[in-house]
Amino acid sequence: MTGADSEESSRGEELGEAMHRFMAELYPICRSITGGGVRETLHAIQKRIPLQIYEVPSGTKAFDWTVPLEWNVTDAYVMNQAGKRVIDFKAHNLHLMSYSSPVRKKMPLADLRPHLFTLPDHPEWIPYRTSYYKESWGFCLRHADFERLPEEEYEVVIDSRLQPGSLTYGEAYLPGESSDEILISCHVCHPSLCNDNLSGIAVAVKLAETMAARQRRYSYRFLFIPGTIGSITWLAQNEQTVSRIKHGLVLTGVGDAGRITYKKSRQGNAEVDRAMAHVLKHVEEAFTLIDFFPYGYDERQYCSPGFDLPVGCFMRTPHGHYPEYHSSADNLDFVKPDSLAQSYAQCLRLFELLEGNRIYVNQNPKCEPQLGRRGLYRTVAGQQEKQWTELALFWVLNASDGRHTLLDIAERADLSFDKIQSAAEALLEVGLLKECPRPESTQWRSDHEYGLL
Amino acid sequence: MTGADSEESSRGEELGEAMHRFMAELYPICRSITGGGVRETLHAIQKRIPLQIYEVPSGTKAFDWTVPLEWNVTDAYVMNQAGKRVIDFKAHNLHLMSYSSPVRKKMPLADLRPHLFTLPDHPEWIPYRTSYYKESWGFCLRHADFERLPEEEYEVVIDSRLQPGSLTYGEAYLPGESSDEILISCHVCHPSLCNDNLSGIAVAVKLAETMAARQRRYSYRFLFIPGTIGSITWLAQNEQTVSRIKHGLVLTGVGDAGRITYKKSRQGNAEVDRAMAHVLKHVEEAFTLIDFFPYGYDERQYCSPGFDLPVGCFMRTPHGHYPEYHSSADNLDFVKPDSLAQSYAQCLRLFELLEGNRIYVNQNPKCEPQLGRRGLYRTVAGQQEKQWTELALFWVLNASDGRHTLLDIAERADLSFDKIQSAAEALLEVGLLKECPRPESTQWRSDHEYGLL
Amino acid sequence: MTGADSEESSRGEELGEAMHRFMAELYPICRSITGGGVRETLHAIQKRIPLQIYEVPSGTKAFDWTVPLEWNVTDAYVMNQAGKRVIDFKAHNLHLMSYSSPVRKKMPLADLRPHLFTLPDHPEWIPYRTSYYKESWGFCLRHADFERLPEEEYEVVIDSRLQPGSLTYGEAYLPGESSDEILISCHVCHPSLCNDNLSGIAVAVKLAETMAARQRRYSYRFLFIPGTIGSITWLAQNEQTVSRIKHGLVLTGVGDAGRITYKKSRQGNAEVDRAMAHVLKHVEEAFTLIDFFPYGYDERQYCSPGFDLPVGCFMRTPHGHYPEYHSSADNLDFVKPDSLAQSYAQCLRLFELLEGNRIYVNQNPKCEPQLGRRGLYRTVAGQQEKQWTELALFWVLNASDGRHTLLDIAERADLSFDKIQSAAEALLEVGLLKECPRPESTQWRSDHEYGLL
Repeated sequence: MTGADSEESSRGEELGEAMHRFMAELYPICRSITGGGVRETLHAIQKRIPLQIYEVPSGTKAFDWTVPLEWNVTDAYVMNQAGKRVIDFKAHNLHLMSYSSPVRKKMPLADLRPHLFTLPDHPEWIPYRTSYYKESWGFCLRHADFERLPEEEYEVVIDSRLQPGSLTYGEAYLPGESSDEILISCHVCHPSLCNDNLSGIAVAVKLAETMAARQRRYSYRFLFIPGTIGSITWLAQNEQTVSRIKHGLVLTGVGDAGRITYKKSRQGNAEVDRAMAHVLKHVEEAFTLIDFFPYGYDERQYCSPGFDLPVGCFMRTPHGHYPEYHSSADNLDFVKPDSLAQSYAQCLRLFELLEGNRIYVNQNPKCEPQLGRRGLYRTVAGQQEKQWTELALFWVLNASDGRHTLLDIAERADLSFDKIQSAAEALLEVGLLKECPRPESTQWRSDHEYGLL
Repeated sequence: MTGADSEESSRGEELGEAMHRFMAELYPICRSITGGGVRETLHAIQKRIPLQIYEVPSGTKAFDWTVPLEWNVTDAYVMNQAGKRVIDFKAHNLHLMSYSSPVRKKMPLADLRPHLFTLPDHPEWIPYRTSYYKESWGFCLRHADFERLPEEEYEVVIDSRLQPGSLTYGEAYLPGESSDEILISCHVCHPSLCNDNLSGIAVAVKLAETMAARQRRYSYRFLFIPGTIGSITWLAQNEQTVSRIKHGLVLTGVGDAGRITYKKSRQGNAEVDRAMAHVLKHVEEAFTLIDFFPYGYDERQYCSPGFDLPVGCFMRTPHGHYPEYHSSADNLDFVKPDSLAQSYAQCLRLFELLEGNRIYVNQNPKCEPQLGRRGLYRTVAGQQEKQWTELALFWVLNASDGRHTLLDIAERADLSFDKIQSAAEALLEVGLLKECPRPESTQWRSDHEYGLL
Repeated sequence: MTGADSEESSRGEELGEAMHRFMAELYPICRSITGGGVRETLHAIQKRIPLQIYEVPSGTKAFDWTVPLEWNVTDAYVMNQAGKRVIDFKAHNLHLMSYSSPVRKKMPLADLRPHLFTLPDHPEWIPYRTSYYKESWGFCLRHADFERLPEEEYEVVIDSRLQPGSLTYGEAYLPGESSDEILISCHVCHPSLCNDNLSGIAVAVKLAETMAARQRRYSYRFLFIPGTIGSITWLAQNEQTVSRIKHGLVLTGVGDAGRITYKKSRQGNAEVDRAMAHVLKHVEEAFTLIDFFPYGYDERQYCSPGFDLPVGCFMRTPHGHYPEYHSSADNLDFVKPDSLAQSYAQCLRLFELLEGNRIYVNQNPKCEPQLGRRGLYRTVAGQQEKQWTELALFWVLNASDGRHTLLDIAERADLSFDKIQSAAEALLEVGLLKECPRPESTQWRSDHEYGLL
């Protein structure tokens, strides 16, 4: 390990620990798709990055959906005849099914049982359940505890409120030279779950901190939103400007120990898809690329056919492929500082690639230019020094005909983007390249084209 | 085996037996490219389906060809000096080379021998030989019998007539909602051969019976024609309307015990090609797809460059790949009721797919619609029921942007067409989809485009 | 081995020996990118083929380059105190670094050493070094000899002249029916090196001799030029007419014992690329196809983005992949007459394919024509004779719709070009095909399109 490697590695370790500490701070908060828990979370984020917090009133229409009533909970428990709380929301917020309606009544175990959810295969874990759009109530508990419940009468109390209020989301916008945007979206609606929710938040906040301190060609928009209804609401509120989104990532499940998985956008070959594949190929030991499918996280909305935005999903082990998913075992131990740091680093490389992925035109397109007199070529032929540098120079010159981005060239040459970019910079400096405007490309189709108008 | 499976299986068995019985009825008839045998065959078909029989006079021009003289035969034999028929057309109609001109003379074995055809590798089989377009005569016989012929004088009698008459073919046209057609073509010119000829006829007749009883979006045209000259004549007579043919199949050799083989149309990626591949992939254990090549059956004519119709060839073991081909061993035992039933079932699935392969437009293209309030979604998140159904719903919604057929979606989702179609129907019912007209697509080029005019 | 094979083989042997003898004649000449050695070489070529020799004055601009001063050398040596030439240009012209400036002085070994080049890994070989564009001087020698040099004072003499003169190149132009050209380019700037330089010259000269004696549809242009500066100068002088070049080959390193390597043009799928791949596939036991990359020989200039000509590079073992490369071990023994003959034969097959690669239109595109009455079809069906011939006939008929060249058809049918061409000729003879003009295709973009104007 060189000094530089070791420094980078120790910086990575520190970063990973810092993100993990932030997760620990957010862990106890009871989040749902609306309510005080989301607000509290957004305020914690606001201490770190310039976050604007939006409140969208219950009842607001968002395409086919309506912003629901706001849900808040003060207390919830099941108490036995001896007056002991056998299930207690205050002990773990997963014990209460999210969006449970208020209840206060006594009932025998037989009546209570249909409202209890457990994981028989993992008897020590509490499952995570929600019922957002159908009025209902329920408790989740360890299967081991469930089996120990005697047949007796229980007092069931859910002190929750489902009232007109609002859906809350946060947006950190970092303006760049261009109004073209890179979107980073993560969900903030899960209670005490770590990989699924908090890991994405922690990495996104750290990325926003880093990018805020850099010069940016692109503008960056970091969204912290409730899953599904949040992205739908955001898209409805920002319908007129989403065409500015040129690249995007949904960040989720970025802290477990598994390998990185990148799920491509619906377009499948969008620049973000190719760029992320390139980054991973040139850095990672092992990773997985998967094609778009219309299940998963908020990429479902960004990639709905009426938007078809170039938004992929960056994660590690996909949801549902690890047993801890949606259970109390997705806790602070399940998420590794190293994994957080590595996820952060790859996303940052993606941004750097996208920032630098320009199109140039060779100003001396007929035959090679004489690199030697510009100091870019070894002078005594036959020496092997700087061979890759020269090859990169020649690739950039040969392929810079106004039709290829640097990423196109890196892929064609099978060299890393960094090498190709360095070559382009050297050629730019001696005037052999000129930047060329990128052609507009948007997949966005009008309502008229959809035959809806 | 479930009750439904077992019912379907017993229905398949019955169907296979029925097709086999029809073949047994047609087996003794001496067919050729013209003559009474074809007429007798078509009349037998006419008892089952509404068949129009056409007579095209000898001498009629059909592109580069001319309808030949009509050939009929009353008797044919080779008799030895003892007055015994050592080769007898009445014992097996393969004994006579098809289109043999009339002969009545005595000759020694030496003169007879050049007119005798055998299969030395299969000494118990009679070969099948024809000489349609060059006047000639000949007998085919078992090689074992040939070797027993003593050197003596033989009386050779062929009581045949080659006279002006007509070429006969049959057409069953089932009009549908649209004048767009599905063509099914099989040849009726082979004498007592089963897989090569009769199996295609039997399956085509049964398909026509089935489709006649159904509501049809497409019109269906079943052709029963002599090979080569029949399809050429039909194309010449119907040149102005062939552009109505949107999909087509040549049916041949569909009764042997081998796996199904589908030979793609010249276009190679026509809807019929993709649809048949999909059907086979989702039903068959093993099957073979082969690219078009300009040898084989009447697909050669339908796929000639001046027509280039989307017509594939559905068969089991390809001709020439089984030793029984074009010999007396291609008999009723060689063809299996099970194979006939399975061939029939796959063709029917193809028709069902083509009938249902429509393009829809998602009426709520921006973000996902709320399936829950339309009864299309599980209400408590986290349950695994109906998972494929939901995935199919989401695929149809996501991909129905007016550019994808249901088959496109099934292929992309890697789900069976049936699942995708069920999902589309459910969405159509709740108003989330609307059908969209399919773009015209024809490969047919004018004479002008060919530089012929 | 048949008589014909053996005759062809003995003719190949003779050809290979003849090419090798010509190389032996050129071997001793001291060539560089300019100077008398090149002129002497071109005069030797001129004795065999009609070669026009051009002189381009030093100082002439050629795009980003300038024709350099002309370099000539009379004598060069390093003499020890005992008056012995320890390094002597007259013993081997590789001893002197090409373009060394004049020197005449005494110096201790310490001062001389930075000017001495050896190959420590191959102590018996003399390396080849040049310094064209930076004034310098140097000697190359066997590492074994270098190690034996005692510490003493040496007299260093380089009797060279760097003076205004010219760059010399030769061009053999063979006009054909069309002004469309096939370009063959090889470099003539290396001193006593055999595979890298002389082998390409020998094969190109022989190809020119052969093509000069044939009827040609295409015009052929054989260039004998100094590497890099030569092709750049030629392109600058002929900028207005390079669009006539429809196919091209750089010939280099065609005499070693390794397998044939074809490096595709920048276009990657140009006709020359596909044609060469076809030729090699149908003749060679083993060969290598590699994609274009912007390193190598003069294809770098022909394939620069402002020209993007369809010019590939035909070689055997690529430069740098054999240790003898650019050393005295690349001598007459290293080059095999057999390899020369085989390289020649494949290039000739390429020319024959390109000459014959036409587009035809089937004059009877609707259904198959009746081949039988034109004598192109077996008369008794069921015989296996001439099967490939018929298949080739049917492929040509089926695919000749004005959009496919014979090479397209050969690739699609997976038959050799020869078979497809024979079939086309037979069909042409009976009037079933007509030739169709080929569409213009050039990748050449104007300065305006490059945004340079």
